[in-house]
Amino acid sequence: MTIENIDVNSYPGSEKVYMPGKIHDIKVGMRQVNLTPTVKIDNGERQQTDNAPVMVYDTSGVYTDPSVKIDINQGIPRIREEWTAKRDDLEQLPAITSEYGRMRESDKSLDEIRFAHRYAPRRAKEGRRITQMALARQGVITPEMEYVAIRENMNNEALGIDTHITPEFVREEIAKGRAIIPANINHPEAEPMIIGRNFSVKLNTNIGNSALSSGIEEEVSKAVWSCYWGGDTLMDLSTGDNIHETREWIIRNCPVPVGTVPVYQALEKVNGSVKDLTWEIYRDTLIEQAEQGVDYFTIHAGALKAHADMLGERLTGCVSRGGSIMTSWAVMHNEENFLYTHFDEICEILAQYDVAVSLGDGMRPGSIHDANDRAQFLELDVLGELTEKAWKHDVQVLIEGPGHVPMHKIRENMDRQLDKCHEAPFYTLGPLTTDIAPGYDHITSAIGAAQIAWMGTAMICYVTPKEHLALPNLEDVRNGVITYKIAAHAADLAKGHPGAQVRDNALSKARFEFRWKDQFNLSLDPGRAKQYYVESHKGDDRFCTMCGPNFCAMRITQNINKSNADNDCAK
Amino acid sequence: MTIENIDVNSYPGSEKVYMPGKIHDIKVGMRQVNLTPTVKIDNGERQQTDNAPVMVYDTSGVYTDPSVKIDINQGIPRIREEWTAKRDDLEQLPAITSEYGRMRESDKSLDEIRFAHRYAPRRAKEGRRITQMALARQGVITPEMEYVAIRENMNNEALGIDTHITPEFVREEIAKGRAIIPANINHPEAEPMIIGRNFSVKLNTNIGNSALSSGIEEEVSKAVWSCYWGGDTLMDLSTGDNIHETREWIIRNCPVPVGTVPVYQALEKVNGSVKDLTWEIYRDTLIEQAEQGVDYFTIHAGALKAHADMLGERLTGCVSRGGSIMTSWAVMHNEENFLYTHFDEICEILAQYDVAVSLGDGMRPGSIHDANDRAQFLELDVLGELTEKAWKHDVQVLIEGPGHVPMHKIRENMDRQLDKCHEAPFYTLGPLTTDIAPGYDHITSAIGAAQIAWMGTAMICYVTPKEHLALPNLEDVRNGVITYKIAAHAADLAKGHPGAQVRDNALSKARFEFRWKDQFNLSLDPGRAKQYYVESHKGDDRFCTMCGPNFCAMRITQNINKSNADNDCAK
Repeated sequence: MTIENIDVNSYPGSEKVYMPGKIHDIKVGMRQVNLTPTVKIDNGERQQTDNAPVMVYDTSGVYTDPSVKIDINQGIPRIREEWTAKRDDLEQLPAITSEYGRMRESDKSLDEIRFAHRYAPRRAKEGRRITQMALARQGVITPEMEYVAIRENMNNEALGIDTHITPEFVREEIAKGRAIIPANINHPEAEPMIIGRNFSVKLNTNIGNSALSSGIEEEVSKAVWSCYWGGDTLMDLSTGDNIHETREWIIRNCPVPVGTVPVYQALEKVNGSVKDLTWEIYRDTLIEQAEQGVDYFTIHAGALKAHADMLGERLTGCVSRGGSIMTSWAVMHNEENFLYTHFDEICEILAQYDVAVSLGDGMRPGSIHDANDRAQFLELDVLGELTEKAWKHDVQVLIEGPGHVPMHKIRENMDRQLDKCHEAPFYTLGPLTTDIAPGYDHITSAIGAAQIAWMGTAMICYVTPKEHLALPNLEDVRNGVITYKIAAHAADLAKGHPGAQVRDNALSKARFEFRWKDQFNLSLDPGRAKQYYVESHKGDDRFCTMCGPNFCAMRITQNINKSNADNDCAK
Repeated sequence: MTIENIDVNSYPGSEKVYMPGKIHDIKVGMRQVNLTPTVKIDNGERQQTDNAPVMVYDTSGVYTDPSVKIDINQGIPRIREEWTAKRDDLEQLPAITSEYGRMRESDKSLDEIRFAHRYAPRRAKEGRRITQMALARQGVITPEMEYVAIRENMNNEALGIDTHITPEFVREEIAKGRAIIPANINHPEAEPMIIGRNFSVKLNTNIGNSALSSGIEEEVSKAVWSCYWGGDTLMDLSTGDNIHETREWIIRNCPVPVGTVPVYQALEKVNGSVKDLTWEIYRDTLIEQAEQGVDYFTIHAGALKAHADMLGERLTGCVSRGGSIMTSWAVMHNEENFLYTHFDEICEILAQYDVAVSLGDGMRPGSIHDANDRAQFLELDVLGELTEKAWKHDVQVLIEGPGHVPMHKIRENMDRQLDKCHEAPFYTLGPLTTDIAPGYDHITSAIGAAQIAWMGTAMICYVTPKEHLALPNLEDVRNGVITYKIAAHAADLAKGHPGAQVRDNALSKARFEFRWKDQFNLSLDPGRAKQYYVESHKGDDRFCTMCGPNFCAMRITQNINKSNADNDCAK
């Protein structure tokens, strides 16, 4: 198995650097973009001024570190292994404990597609509270907390930019439930990252095969690809064959937290028959996935039986897969959703591995017409109730949000979420601000995502151009991720995230000074920027084909500046 | 010469229809999307319900009317010819009056590239006030005003949707200067459209060759292409050879208003030497273009000599071509910008042909760093002063706006513009909400455009993926236009534009009912939506490859609805 399409040199002018911790023995990876000097010719003399390098937040892990040899059959380095190994609140199990996991492990026919280096899982020692939230509440600043504090402040120390984000601040935010670090103790390959509205906005990408397409190799490639472009977390939404094995490959090779929707696999285990789903099967699925290292689970525990009756009022019913499965199950059995009735037990399991719960919005609106309706907001109330329950178990919580919402109804979503869910971080899918552009829903949704992120949403789930139509291919993933990096960064600027503007300023300075390479290298997608330029460009670097040499405003401005300075207006 | 790429059948399921006027003998073109019926199988019986057709705003003119034979050598039908011919306030001139225009006309070497059917221009009779604003102030509802009232309300009468947009309302808005109908009496090919914040949000596209690329044929193709996808107005920003002839071809074949920046051509006339620009050359250029039929001129009369001194405070100086030319001229001559000093004479010329003025923002910020700075806002004050001057001449006014602005600074732009420019319609370029994504600036800017349009901007100027890098090709134009259609429509929904949601509802209903063709046909880009679907789809229409058959939420919901109705939960 090989990883296609990833080239460590494709972020030109960049190098991987590591910043050390001050509290813990950690090194925080980031990408340093080195810039060329500014050159001016004054009276025939060449004057050169250096431009400081710019650090950029880097989700690509070791895939862009040329000193690390990638072999996906081995998995990537387990950077948190040492941290967890040191802890006295964890125990290493002799073997995996999930029934289904053991069955798959002993199935010889799967040897060929199995990741070879299965590790024995860790779990909390009996009676110990081990989650990042538990530790934060005990006053402990974990290595993970220091890691994210450094990561959120890459340029700030060097540039003397004020920041509120200290390791202690991180701890406080996690203790209050206002931020989470999704970091299953069984996914030591992941670099810690934080999701909360007082930090930079994060973006999640979805990958996963459906019954119709895609294989293991393609999924792993997509996972790495998504990290490469800037995905902060990754949800594996596979619903086809060999979910268990695919997931192992992905987690062992994934430098970002991985999320899943366990009910998808549970449903596969009963051959797609919603009626046959049981709590026992679901429970075993949670353990199976927690022991593999899944960092957060989307759980549709707020989609209640009562919601089924409200769907008739809607134009597009229920558009959440998990939500529709659970509502359907409840109606079929004339019982309450078992994820709701067993929520305490779910939390007990999650707490043992520090898996965060992402409370799914099964009733999210699937059209402008259905936005902010009764079903949606009643479910949000339930999610608030479940948040408090999870926090009692020290389980970290995310709240999932819409969906399709016109711009003037976005604010209400944010305000209500903060209120009803006690400031647990919000994690929204877009929202899409119109329904009329299938094929361009990365854009309809980026418009809404930028706004809701500015208002306080902590993580936005990307949407690709193929949304509503088909599964994304690699190019769609790239377009989706970059589009959401834009939305997230626009929100960081608007929120005043410390140091967010450093990169904009450096790029704009490069643009004004015709340092084309620096402009490309500082951009979110250097390859594409350069490609567009080169395709149409012929010769002189001091203008582009947009305006031509006589009409380049920047060049004319430089001459004005010079004229003013020289008192030589005849130039 | 032929028009490539346009296929009247590429909006499948659609037909061109015309709605008649009630006051005037006019017929308003629009596109009717015909839908298939909803089919349900109930107890083995097939139940069929019709879905009403949806009207969509159509900027493609006769190019999508199969009953009209297109021959671009003849130009498209001159629908307003009759209206202007009837008027007693206009006179037909024996020949064009611009010196440069006459010179080009008598140059035999240009015969081959010349549009063959030059029409004698019309002009206001001595002492008559002929603009839409003048007529509105006199209490006249012109055919143009009734036309746009019908156009803004396509679905509303049939569906009984309340609307404030009556012909009389249109007249009032124009009389107050809050809206404009750019409609040069010498461009009778254009279908009337209105730009104002109490109407649907419009989008402008830019085309034009620079010295480095492109020819006449390509520019005409681009013009038609842009109208085809949804461009409401078109700016011809050509700066290369044969500007005069290119423009004639474009105008004679363009069903939407055409704008230009006359200083570009004036500069060509002095071989690109800013210093050699004169008022006389500029003045003749205005007349030349007004007699060809340009509907609005961008005029950088607010970029003053004093602004040159402020550029040093900026990261990216002056990024407006027109602004940098005029500021540069002022510094070189140590005189005030001649567009400012001659503004009354400019208005006198514009008023004779009903050319609207679009007051250029020569000091628009070119980076996040420079947003909302002194230079920008001082120029806005000057534009407010010029607005009042233009209105004294009954000249219709647009105000151009930024540029690069982070989200939290957008609101101030809108509020100030309304205040300082007396509610004249705002026309912004984006704004781009971050600088870090060259290659994706259609998206960075659509995020800002949607917001500012919601707040009251009347027209948004599209940005293509090639912005900052190169001139757009046809595919870039398509992407740019669709992206801006999204932003404009999202704003229409948020503003509550009467009937805006009709199309969203119809598309979402089609989506929920798996009427795939209707979903495609109602979308902004039916071809692309269908292509994405078909490429990955195999067989059953009742789900898509995103989720596969077992996981389709919409299908499961339909089963829930059915289960509830049937009391048959075992299904």
